[in-house]
Amino acid sequence: MNEIVFPPEITEYIGTAAGHTIGMVIANVDPVVRTLLHIPEQYSSLAILTSRTGAAAQAIAIDDASKAANVELLIFELPRDTEGYSGHGNLFVLGAQDVSDARRAVEIALAGIDERAEGIYINEVGHMEMHTTANAGPVLHQIFSVPLGKAFGFICAAPAGIGLVTADTAMKAAPVEIVWYGTPSIHLSMTNEIIIGITGDYGAVKKAVDTAYQKGSDLIQTFGKVPASILHFK
Amino acid sequence: MNEIVFPPEITEYIGTAAGHTIGMVIANVDPVVRTLLHIPEQYSSLAILTSRTGAAAQAIAIDDASKAANVELLIFELPRDTEGYSGHGNLFVLGAQDVSDARRAVEIALAGIDERAEGIYINEVGHMEMHTTANAGPVLHQIFSVPLGKAFGFICAAPAGIGLVTADTAMKAAPVEIVWYGTPSIHLSMTNEIIIGITGDYGAVKKAVDTAYQKGSDLIQTFGKVPASILHFK
Amino acid sequence: MNEIVFPPEITEYIGTAAGHTIGMVIANVDPVVRTLLHIPEQYSSLAILTSRTGAAAQAIAIDDASKAANVELLIFELPRDTEGYSGHGNLFVLGAQDVSDARRAVEIALAGIDERAEGIYINEVGHMEMHTTANAGPVLHQIFSVPLGKAFGFICAAPAGIGLVTADTAMKAAPVEIVWYGTPSIHLSMTNEIIIGITGDYGAVKKAVDTAYQKGSDLIQTFGKVPASILHFK
Repeated sequence: MNEIVFPPEITEYIGTAAGHTIGMVIANVDPVVRTLLHIPEQYSSLAILTSRTGAAAQAIAIDDASKAANVELLIFELPRDTEGYSGHGNLFVLGAQDVSDARRAVEIALAGIDERAEGIYINEVGHMEMHTTANAGPVLHQIFSVPLGKAFGFICAAPAGIGLVTADTAMKAAPVEIVWYGTPSIHLSMTNEIIIGITGDYGAVKKAVDTAYQKGSDLIQTFGKVPASILHFK
Repeated sequence: MNEIVFPPEITEYIGTAAGHTIGMVIANVDPVVRTLLHIPEQYSSLAILTSRTGAAAQAIAIDDASKAANVELLIFELPRDTEGYSGHGNLFVLGAQDVSDARRAVEIALAGIDERAEGIYINEVGHMEMHTTANAGPVLHQIFSVPLGKAFGFICAAPAGIGLVTADTAMKAAPVEIVWYGTPSIHLSMTNEIIIGITGDYGAVKKAVDTAYQKGSDLIQTFGKVPASILHFK
Repeated sequence: MNEIVFPPEITEYIGTAAGHTIGMVIANVDPVVRTLLHIPEQYSSLAILTSRTGAAAQAIAIDDASKAANVELLIFELPRDTEGYSGHGNLFVLGAQDVSDARRAVEIALAGIDERAEGIYINEVGHMEMHTTANAGPVLHQIFSVPLGKAFGFICAAPAGIGLVTADTAMKAAPVEIVWYGTPSIHLSMTNEIIIGITGDYGAVKKAVDTAYQKGSDLIQTFGKVPASILHFK
């Protein structure tokens, strides 16, 4: 009685994270929406994570979440966004048989995104996303064709020509293998980036990503400020 | 004599409206441009409406105009725009046999856009476009497959995951039918949105749109300001 | 001795130019990157030019460079960029047998871009790119199908409807021929533009471009400021 609910309860809302990310669940998806989005019969609950900025930080954090909760990636989209910069936003939809699994996946992912967003760097002329993870799970396998259980490195720089030089630099820095790549018109959404996803021994992947980060950062600084992690400047 | 024409007369210019919309006519389209754009033989005049921000506000206003002037929709494009936000701009080209019809269509549409733009909401982390109209004409029929003469609701929210939750909410709120939908890579231009177009009894459509508006507004406020109508903040 | 190298040497870096353009070379491209990007066997060096803003200013300057250095255009991409405005950025990759050719091509192109960027105009509601060149070389031939050695005009305005009116105006202004065109969904990247590339006698091409510039500028001013060349306002 006289209970004040403020702000109003939003049943779907779980929380937010870096990169203007919001995490939500739908406990029982509407049957028409289910058909439209080709949600398989066995899932009635959806875990939803969606951001204005970033792609791989979210993918890696959601991959980690998928190892800890009983969920399956159903939809992955890379809209052109980054709030006026030249990269992506994202949409991840995961199916769960039980809403508690969906909720747990979102909670773990949001915490992970707040850590992983350290690897998203932006300045006024470019951006980079640089990540290494030791142990790819089913989401990274599905999105970027990383072998399950292997190390994964994500090397992305913009504008696209800088991405090309960082990719070339990474490949020369350590014995790694490319499992996925994108240019504006290939696998991307006409964003101004070149991206490679790499695998190999963890040490080699880390060295390739670190070397690429340094090269991209140096090049972007030739005509702009030091690219700062979005955790620090936003 | 001594008449000062200021600003210079631009024969094509008719006027502007909300969403950085400009309305123009071409009285006699150039034959090469006609061929390039596949303008049918019977139309020599074009009515052109084009915006940096918005899609359905303009579509509904132009639909109303098409009921009052003898014009036919020839081109509809949804470029990725919104001036740095994560949605669309638009291009509408309508054919008319007579330039007075083209002019009249643009004039009616511009007035309508200034009203309909009430339903375009933006804040720093998201946007929504929410509209209801009682009686779909030929333009809405052509673009969104709305049955002629039926009510139409447009439910759009960004980032895309919020659009998914608002769509799910709308479908559970009232007995309506989806006639069109879009995700970043399906029917849209890699914008960070999910959209549904719905039809049904007017009351049901209105309830679905209003419920979706409230859900989208609540969710966007969890990490940003109250999304404001572009009529009020620009 | 005691030589201070500041900033740190970046082997790939050549220089920057207008439109947030950066020019780089890769002396010996990595073999995996070569395969991925389909770089022909005979080229081991790459000349790379990439921008946040602009397309034809860079294309014309690079075309001029390709006449003076032994390089071939291998990759041309038009990402959706312009730093929040409604147009393109770009990526050009040229192959060279020798790194000195690659370097020379980049140096000439960067100088040319700083001149040609005069023809890129932006204001808060639209943009235009308007260029004339007397003598198309292999790069303009390859990208825009301009006959080798012929004059080339580039007419681009945004939002897209203004581009349509400027194109129509240009075609009526002088006896020119369209060799290339783009609308948001045709040949472009869902940018909010319409573009035509024209050829003909130099005088006719220049008259068409100048007339289109005036029309586009007048129309954009009806709802915004005078579009300023990016050389002057940035």
